Formats: sequence, C-alpha cells, structure tokens
Amino acid sequence: MSFDRLIDGIVKMQNPTVAGLDPKLDFIPDYIKENAYMEHGKTLEGAAAALFEFNKGLIDALCDIVPAVKPQAAYYEMYGWNGVHALQKTIEYAKSKGMFVITDGKRNDIGTTMEAYAKAHLGITDVDGEKIEPFGADALTVNGYLGTDGVKPVLNVCKEFDKGMFILVKTSNPSSGELQDRILDDEKTVYRTMGDMCENWGSEIMGQYGYSGVGAVVGATYPQQLGELRKALPHTFFLVPGYGAQGGGAADVAPAFDEKGLGAIINSSRGIMCAWKKESGTAPKDYAQAARREAIRMRDEIVSYIGTITK
Amino acid sequence: MSFDRLIDGIVKMQNPTVAGLDPKLDFIPDYIKENAYMEHGKTLEGAAAALFEFNKGLIDALCDIVPAVKPQAAYYEMYGWNGVHALQKTIEYAKSKGMFVITDGKRNDIGTTMEAYAKAHLGITDVDGEKIEPFGADALTVNGYLGTDGVKPVLNVCKEFDKGMFILVKTSNPSSGELQDRILDDEKTVYRTMGDMCENWGSEIMGQYGYSGVGAVVGATYPQQLGELRKALPHTFFLVPGYGAQGGGAADVAPAFDEKGLGAIINSSRGIMCAWKKESGTAPKDYAQAARREAIRMRDEIVSYIGTITK
Repeated sequence: MSFDRLIDGIVKMQNPTVAGLDPKLDFIPDYIKENAYMEHGKTLEGAAAALFEFNKGLIDALCDIVPAVKPQAAYYEMYGWNGVHALQKTIEYAKSKGMFVITDGKRNDIGTTMEAYAKAHLGITDVDGEKIEPFGADALTVNGYLGTDGVKPVLNVCKEFDKGMFILVKTSNPSSGELQDRILDDEKTVYRTMGDMCENWGSEIMGQYGYSGVGAVVGATYPQQLGELRKALPHTFFLVPGYGAQGGGAADVAPAFDEKGLGAIINSSRGIMCAWKKESGTAPKDYAQAARREAIRMRDEIVSYIGTITK
Repeated sequence: MSFDRLIDGIVKMQNPTVAGLDPKLDFIPDYIKENAYMEHGKTLEGAAAALFEFNKGLIDALCDIVPAVKPQAAYYEMYGWNGVHALQKTIEYAKSKGMFVITDGKRNDIGTTMEAYAKAHLGITDVDGEKIEPFGADALTVNGYLGTDGVKPVLNVCKEFDKGMFILVKTSNPSSGELQDRILDDEKTVYRTMGDMCENWGSEIMGQYGYSGVGAVVGATYPQQLGELRKALPHTFFLVPGYGAQGGGAADVAPAFDEKGLGAIINSSRGIMCAWKKESGTAPKDYAQAARREAIRMRDEIVSYIGTITK
C-alpha cells in the first residue's frame, strides 16, 4: 500500500515534510527564464521549459533530505499543454531521484470519468493494447463532494498500482468553514463526516503501519481540528498544507502526528521555492541551496516538536 | 456576462442542450484510430490525434444545431500531455465554429492557485509581458467545497474576460446524497446550501436575461431536486448531466427550466458520441451524422416539454 513507501521515506530521512512545487514564473530566477526564452521564445513552451529547469534544480537539492514533492497541477495547466508536459517531466524526474510524488490536482468526478482521472495520474492508459503511464504520480489529492462514486474508481487504481490518495477534509483557507464547519443533523461537522468517510473508504487498503491508502487534507491553520481529527481518524494519514506562507507554524502542526511521530506530512511550497528571495545576500544561482537550507530548517523545527520518528 | 452568449445561442437554435465530448477510444471508429496510429504509432500522441479527429467530425456535424460542447477534462488527461493538447485544439476548433465551450474540469483550490486554474481554462497567462490564452474555454465547472476562497478568483477572471462557471450543487450519481443530501443545523440540505452560495456569488455578475455567470450543476437523475432548486435559485443557470446513459429522460429534466424555457442546458455525452454504434446499419464513417440525428431527436424531445424558448 502506497503510504507505506511514503512512511518508509519519512522514517529514513527523519523528515515528515513535502516540498510543494508550485513554480510561478515570479519565483524563478531570471537566468533560468532567460535561457528558456532564448531557446523557445516568450511562449508557453518557453515558460514550461523554465518551470522544469527550476524544478530539476530543487529536486536535485532536496532529494536526499526531503522524502516527497507535491506539484500543484494548477501552476502547470496555467501554461497550457506545454505546462502539463512540464508536470509530467517533473514527476518523472522526481521519481528517478527516489522521491514520492503527490500530484495536487483535487480531482473529482464519478464512475468511468473518475476512473479516467485515476488512470491519468496514478495508473496506466491502454492505447489499443499498448500500456502507457500518462503521469505516474504516487498519490493524488481528491475532492470527495460527490461521495463514494467519486472515490471507488481511485481506490481500484490505488489497489492495482500501489498508489494512494488524499481527500479534502478541512482545508487551510479562511473560508473553508462556510461549508466544512457546518453542523449536520447528527451533530457532526461536515469536515468530520468527510473524515469518517475517509476512514471507511481506507479500510479496503490498509498498510502495514496502520495507515490506509486514503489520506486526508487538513490545514495547518486549524490546529484544534488537526488534533480532533488525529484522534478520530487513527488510520488516516494527513497531508497538511498551510505551514509557513499561510501562517501555520511548527506548534500548529504538532497535533497532526501520532505518538510515533507518524500520521502526517507537512507541506511547504513558497517557503522553500522562494527561500532564495528571502535570504539576504543569496545569488539567484544559489536558489536550490537556499531551498535546501529552508527545508532543513523546517525539518528541524518540526522534529523538535515530535521527536524521533519510528515505525 | 458569459451566460448571455450561451442563452443567445440556445434561443437562436431553439435547443437547450450541450454535447459532451468525452472521447474514449472505444467510442471512436476504427478507421480514425488506424489513420492516427499509422502516423503516430499506438502512443499517447496517436490516441490524442484520434481524439481530435473524432471531435472535429462531431463539431462539424453539430455546430449549426447544438449551441455548446462540454469536453470532459479527464478523458484528455488520460492520454497525458498529448491528450491535454487535443483538449486545447478541440476547444479552439469548437470556438472557431461558433460553439460555446464548457470545460468540465470540476477544478477547485484557493487563492492564487485557483486563480491559476481560472487563468488556465478561462483567461490569459502572462509570460513576462506576453499575454497568451492557454485553453480559452467559455465556462468551467468548479467544485465549491472550499467555499468563497475557491470561487472568488474564478469570479474575477469571469468578470474580466466575460466567462462563466458552473458549481457542483446536486450531482447526478447514486452516491451524491452521502454528503449533498445531509441536513444542516438550519434544516437545509448541503446541496441547497451550496445552491444558495451560488445565488450569492452570482449576484456580482448578473446577465441581461436574469441569470448570473455562476451556474450550478444539478443532475437529471434527481427531478424533484431540480424543480426545488429551479424555484429556490431564480438567477442560477443549470448545467444538467445525467440525461440518457445515466437514466434521466426529457420529463425528468423539464423542471430545470423556467416558464420561458430558459434556465438550463441539458448534457448528453455517450448518447450523441455513440449514436453510430446504436443505430442499426450505420457505417462507422457516418458516426457524425448519427450524432447529429441523435442530437436532433434529443432537442425535439426536450423542446416538446418546454415549448418555444424566448428571452
């Protein structure tokens, strides 16, 4: 079961964090963009080339200390099909360096359509007998508003190809409560109800460390809910956005972990990608080393709250 | 406001339907696939070439009688970045034939990430001063689980570029009720609450025919809820999936319309795309004409329930 591989990586590196790869052009040093525009012009193809080059540098600098990357699909789609090609190449490159890849696509649909998304991002597409992996990520984020019909097709692909998913439960944004915090007629919140569904769906793909292949997205900006859900959902692994730029700190994310230091992986995107802009005196050429320094700082800060991570 | 253009097309053609373009390889006649494989091999590129060729034939056969197409992003992503390229070319071709294009992507995220999705699918991307349209659809389906933070960025792009969105309210699948039918503490259902949010969000982009640029997805398989929501959400235009293959008939979708025959557009995907397989004696080469016959049958069946459509 896929999150076993993620957990193995976390324990080996003693680092429960994931680097978000959301490469806006603003975050990319000029020398990378200039090289890309020289070859491809100021086009979507040129932008996509710059994205991939930037990501490669980050992956090279992080792959021995950070177990996973999380490319955000929106920032690739923004550059059209060329951008989506850069997403595919980024996933391939990160996997070649041993990293666990979570595509943050928040995909959702039903039946054969959801099956198509699952095959696209986690599985294999059959072109009249030829089996081809379109994107090949290890896990995908999923929006569960459509219920079981939208999750079962992903579950099937996860079982077949040893992959996992993270379902949106309590998101990190200020307005997440408009629906997610509402109370249902059994006095549970919507987010808790979604969390309970994750536990239920996950029971079909339980891993050897007690966590299933159906994880949950729970924001660092809601530490109380993180703690509540950690207790209520003992088999559900958490992907925690909102650390750093969105305001969550290490103390806020500590409740996401179990007593072994397992149960969650904390994402930082801008904090790592833009570290070179925040450090004083760092040259653009050193962007990847700046990212590495920030990743180490983040790791050490979080581990200081949870201690040694054991399986 | 974008749905005004859609409404103009519906009234002009007296046809409140949209053709879903979900081109699975199984739906495509062999001669198209063989030509594509001859040129590109049995690869994702070959599959994508077949998809686009199939779609072109459908668009040519439908563009003077059906006002809109709805490509489902999953069936393009399934063929990797090549498939996504076919999506872009399909959108471009349908627009060149005067059709209104709804990308069914059910995208959702927050803040700058949702802005990236909105720019990708509906707006313009800025590559260091060069303004480029990555996909250029007229409307996008959106999942509202994250609340206002996930909708505002799309609203802004819709205002700027005269586009629209459809938010999932009550989906057509059997398990949609697991969350959407649950009762909240104010005794309203989750789907009704989401519908009320659509009315609220839409008030910022009201069109000249009384419908806003924030529509709702409501399934044909739930006619009672369709009628309830039509009354409750007088400014929200409905995109109605579930007609045909999923079991909804013309009588089921009739409650989606207002007294002028406006307020909804009914989708058929497999019914139209696979008409050539269902008709007896139709040659694969006539797939597009079979699609046209089915589109006319569907139009006439629905219009027989709602009468002449007026603005």
